[in-house]
Parts: sequence; C-alpha cells; structure tokens
Amino acid sequence: MKTIIEKYGHRRVTVVEGGITRHRSIFNGLKVFAEKEFSSHLLQKPEVVIIHDAVRPFVEEDIVSKVVMAAKEHGAAGAIRPLVSTVIASAADGCLDHSLERARYRASEMPQAFLFDIIYEAYQQCTDYDLDYGTECLHLALKYCKTNAKLVEGTTDLWKVTYKRDLYAAESIIKDNLSQRVCVITKGKESLAQVGFLLPESLKNQIKVEAISVSPSKNDSHLQNIISGQCYNFVCVNDKRCAIQEIQELVDMLEKSNTPLLYPVVLISVHLDISENNSFSIGMEDITTIKKFARETKKKNILVYGLLIQYKDPLLLQETVNSAAALIMALIKDRNPELIGQLLVA
Amino acid sequence: MKTIIEKYGHRRVTVVEGGITRHRSIFNGLKVFAEKEFSSHLLQKPEVVIIHDAVRPFVEEDIVSKVVMAAKEHGAAGAIRPLVSTVIASAADGCLDHSLERARYRASEMPQAFLFDIIYEAYQQCTDYDLDYGTECLHLALKYCKTNAKLVEGTTDLWKVTYKRDLYAAESIIKDNLSQRVCVITKGKESLAQVGFLLPESLKNQIKVEAISVSPSKNDSHLQNIISGQCYNFVCVNDKRCAIQEIQELVDMLEKSNTPLLYPVVLISVHLDISENNSFSIGMEDITTIKKFARETKKKNILVYGLLIQYKDPLLLQETVNSAAALIMALIKDRNPELIGQLLVA
Repeated sequence: MKTIIEKYGHRRVTVVEGGITRHRSIFNGLKVFAEKEFSSHLLQKPEVVIIHDAVRPFVEEDIVSKVVMAAKEHGAAGAIRPLVSTVIASAADGCLDHSLERARYRASEMPQAFLFDIIYEAYQQCTDYDLDYGTECLHLALKYCKTNAKLVEGTTDLWKVTYKRDLYAAESIIKDNLSQRVCVITKGKESLAQVGFLLPESLKNQIKVEAISVSPSKNDSHLQNIISGQCYNFVCVNDKRCAIQEIQELVDMLEKSNTPLLYPVVLISVHLDISENNSFSIGMEDITTIKKFARETKKKNILVYGLLIQYKDPLLLQETVNSAAALIMALIKDRNPELIGQLLVA
Repeated sequence: MKTIIEKYGHRRVTVVEGGITRHRSIFNGLKVFAEKEFSSHLLQKPEVVIIHDAVRPFVEEDIVSKVVMAAKEHGAAGAIRPLVSTVIASAADGCLDHSLERARYRASEMPQAFLFDIIYEAYQQCTDYDLDYGTECLHLALKYCKTNAKLVEGTTDLWKVTYKRDLYAAESIIKDNLSQRVCVITKGKESLAQVGFLLPESLKNQIKVEAISVSPSKNDSHLQNIISGQCYNFVCVNDKRCAIQEIQELVDMLEKSNTPLLYPVVLISVHLDISENNSFSIGMEDITTIKKFARETKKKNILVYGLLIQYKDPLLLQETVNSAAALIMALIKDRNPELIGQLLVA
C-alpha cells in the first residue's frame, strides 16, 4: 500500500491497519480521528466521513459528492442500485420460504457517508456479534443512533469487483476508457501531407482525434498540452524507415510531463513507404532496432509498435489508410504488451 | 433465432413467440405442450420443464441436472447464489427503512425446473398483475400450487449478462475457454527438430500442448482426432518462407471435420529461418500473399497469423523460442481479427 502511494505521488493519505472483519477495519479507520492511542497519526476530526470499498474502483466524483451532501443533511447516506435478481429466503429444510418483491428492495452499495459523530458513536456501541458478522454500516447508524440514512441512486459504475469475470470486465473498462482519444503527429514534410490528412479522417469514425503537424525543429506547445491532458495514444507519421529518433523525442516529452504514467501509453510509429521499388522488403536490422527500443520504453510504461503504409497506387491509398486505421484501433484497444516492437503492415 | 438454429445445426428446437413481459413469454412456451390453439407445433407433454434465461449463457450441465432431479422430487427447484450486496428496503421518503441480514437471504438465479403440471397450473391461475409485474417463477409455484421449491446452490457461472461490463466479461471468459489447448504441428524435417521440441516445451508452461510431427505425404489420424476434439488453436512449424500450401491443408481438414466452427480458430504459421545470411529481409510479396490468404480464411472463421523465428546463434535459440511462445499465447488469447495476415518476428 505504501509503495503504491509513493509511486503515484498521492498526498494526504494515512494507512491504518485493517481488522479481521470489514466492520473492525472501518472502526480502526475511524479511531484515527478520535482516539489517543493513535496519536502518532492523529488527524483533525472531520465533519463527514466517506466509507468506500477498494473493490469498487470506478466510483465517480459526482456520487461521492451526492452522498456527502445527503449525509450532512440526514446524518447518513448511501448509494443504492436496483436488484438484478429476485431475493429469496430459504427455510431450514433448504426449500423456498418466501420471495421478496424485487421492486420494493434495493442493493446497498458504496460509497456511504456519515456525520463523523454518528458513525463513530454507532461503532462504539457495536456488539462483538455486529463487528464479526455485520456487513452494513447504514444498519449500524439506524440501530444505534436512530439515523435513517438517505438513499442515493447510484450508477452502474458502482459494481463490486468480486469474481474473476469482474477482473476481466474491469480490465476492459479501463482499456475502453484509455481508447477514447488519439493524437496523430505528422512531421511536416510535403510527401506525408496526404496521409497526414487521410489517416486522422479515417480514425475519426472510431475515436476522437487531435491531428497536429510538427516541423522537426520546433517545440510544439499544442503537443505539450495534449500530453499534459492525459492522452494515452499517439501516432507518429514519418517517411523514415526507422524513425527511432522521432519516437525518442516523444518519449522524452512524455517523461518530462509531470503526469505520472498510471496507465500504459500506446505509441505507434507509422512509416509511409513511397519508394517506387516493387521488390520492397523489410530489413531484419530495422526490426531488431525497433524491438530493442520498444523493450526499453516498456519499462517506462510506454508501448511502442511499428506500422508500415505502402503508397504505390494512389487509387488504393484510401483503402490502405483505412486498413492502417483499423490496425491502429486494434493496437490501442488491446494495449498488448507482448506485441511491442512488432512491425505491422497495412 | 431461426437463422442461428439452422446455421449451427440445432435439432429438437421449437421457437415460440415471446410476450411483452417475462412471465407472458414463459407462459407462451408452456402452452405449446398443452393447448390446442398451438396444435401446429404441439409437442408431447413432458414430465419436467426447465426454465432458463438466454442472458446466463455459461450454465453447466451439472446444475441443470441437479434442478431437474430436485424438481422431480419436490415439484419445483431453482438455483441460488449468495448475495453480493446487502439488500435494503426504502421508506416512502427515500430513506432507509430496514436492511436484511445478508446471510439469511439468497439471490434466486436460473435455471429452474418444475413438474410440468405444477408450473402450468400456476400460470393458468396467474392474475394479470402477476403476469405484468412478477419476476419469479418459484413464487408462482408457491402461491398457486403450495409448492415450496427446493433451492440448489449454483456456481458463479450462472451470473446474468446485464450491463456492458458483463459483455466484456463474457467475451473474456469465452476467449479464456478457447485458450486452454494448442496443437503444434511440425512438418517432419530434420532442420526443424530442435524448434519442434523446444517450442512445445516453452508453451507447456501456459497451455496444454499436443505436439505432433507429420511427414508431408501422410494423412495423420491423430491430427484428425485433435481437430474433431474441438481444439481451437494450431501452430504449424515450417522451414518454408511462405507456407501457404501447408496451412491450406490444415484449413481443408478443419472444414471437412464435421464440427461447425462455432468460435474462431487461431492458426499460426511459424517459419523457422535458418539462413546464415545476416542481411535477411522480408519481401513484400510474401507479406501480401499471407494477408490475402488470411482475408479469405477469415470468412470461414479461421484466423491466420504468421510468425518468424530467426535461428542464427544457437546460444540465443532458447530465448528466441520463449519470445515466440509469448507471441503465440498473445495471439491465441486475443484472437484479434484485425491482426490476421500480419507477420510477427520473435
């Protein structure tokens, strides 16, 4: 936990030892604000505390804000969702006792918020049975402080990462979120102008595109802004066979920007081949160079891929560019670390 | 629906028109077994009927069998799962009324099974309110036939594909299931013997491997068996630059096997380059040939990829083979249709 906090530069975080059950862990967290024995990291007592599960990583600021405001007014508040399945009670013989009418009940989710004094009072009055077998903070506030929590309708993002399938879903959601925007950089040479125009146009059907031309000698503040704006996908169009130097410049810019690279950045070096030589071939030296380079940048959480666009027949250019756009989208969406340094051909 | 049934050769399926609510659709299904107005597709009345949701596609035969046996004994039975969240009831003012003790309740899932006479009787007695707002078949059997359903503990596979994240999860689970087994075919030439041994060994750490050597002139019954055994991943090791003919043979075998290709098959053509020429290069003609071929086989739901292993320095062979194995696993796991026809380099 402390390694993560340090690595990503989080501030204002105090880590407290967990207990053997959910309620005991939460109680430990609350004690830090109120009890002398925790004086080594005693913090100022807040008006409202938020309780959240790490297994609900996609919580939006909006719902946090809503439960806090509701807690200020009502003393306690929690996010709820409609039930996905009917809930039933079983009898002692393993048979159905009764089923609940689905529309009358809700799933209680996180985040929840409380006036500190209410939830701390509730935990102080808890029995050992509550602490060992209970699962619901709203229930404690009701039972021990007669506080009926305000229920706030949450979004589907609040779901709990519980099973293996939820890890798959979480990975896909993160990858999807990272695949919303791409920056296409064309080094400003005339021979590239056509592809530098057609490629962003083709990509625009699937993703938000920021297309920029950079003349090699100039530092572009627009590009700097895009990098600072947490764009995680870059396409560099070059006419050089092995444009390591150009990619290196972008890698340097990404490193210098103060945004920590929380997620892997995709960087695709597109080489436009305009040679008229029909027996065109890819040299193994070039491939080895890109692979070595990609292995190094991967350590910085930057995934580099190569893509070759052949420009022989102007009539086929649009088709080739569309095929290149499809490959770029596949690389961005997959973000596959095993395929780094490979040279794909559109 | 009828297209799917025909395409995949399903037998013994009768499609019935759905209703505007869940219960009305189920009732329509039951009527086919009992009512004269459906005499055009009147079927023999079964002893037990199973009710299932299409949104729970990963149901195992085992749980189906369990609910059927329990229904025979108890008249009704259904799968249950532990609750993931606490269930609460809200009061009219949008505040918490009470929370249910999570351990005492269960989520009611599908499949459910019933003696036909019981569930049909229950549906016949249903009110319009039941048919329009109800969600639980077990409840109807209890309410109208005094049958307390036997509850059967289900597995996590029974989850309901409800939200977009569930589609992501379902896709990953299917891909995961398809990535359990690979067949490595080495065309029996001496120059390939070492890689034909090392590559399966390296893959074995991550996947079940069946390694076979086929001498080019002979039809291998072992390979036929593997294909019929629903293997969805094949690696062909060749020493030819562009082994289209060898892959075509395998494509033909896959087509001739009577297993319908329900899922995309991954077919990786591995070319071992043992030339001592240092300035090795990949000709564009080869790449174009593979891409054209891959585009054709994709229509048959077979995804073809190329992979080149360079064999120059015997000391580096193991490392190169491990890198090839990692690329093969990435291609198998991703099953990405956009990357077909590409030639990767290990």
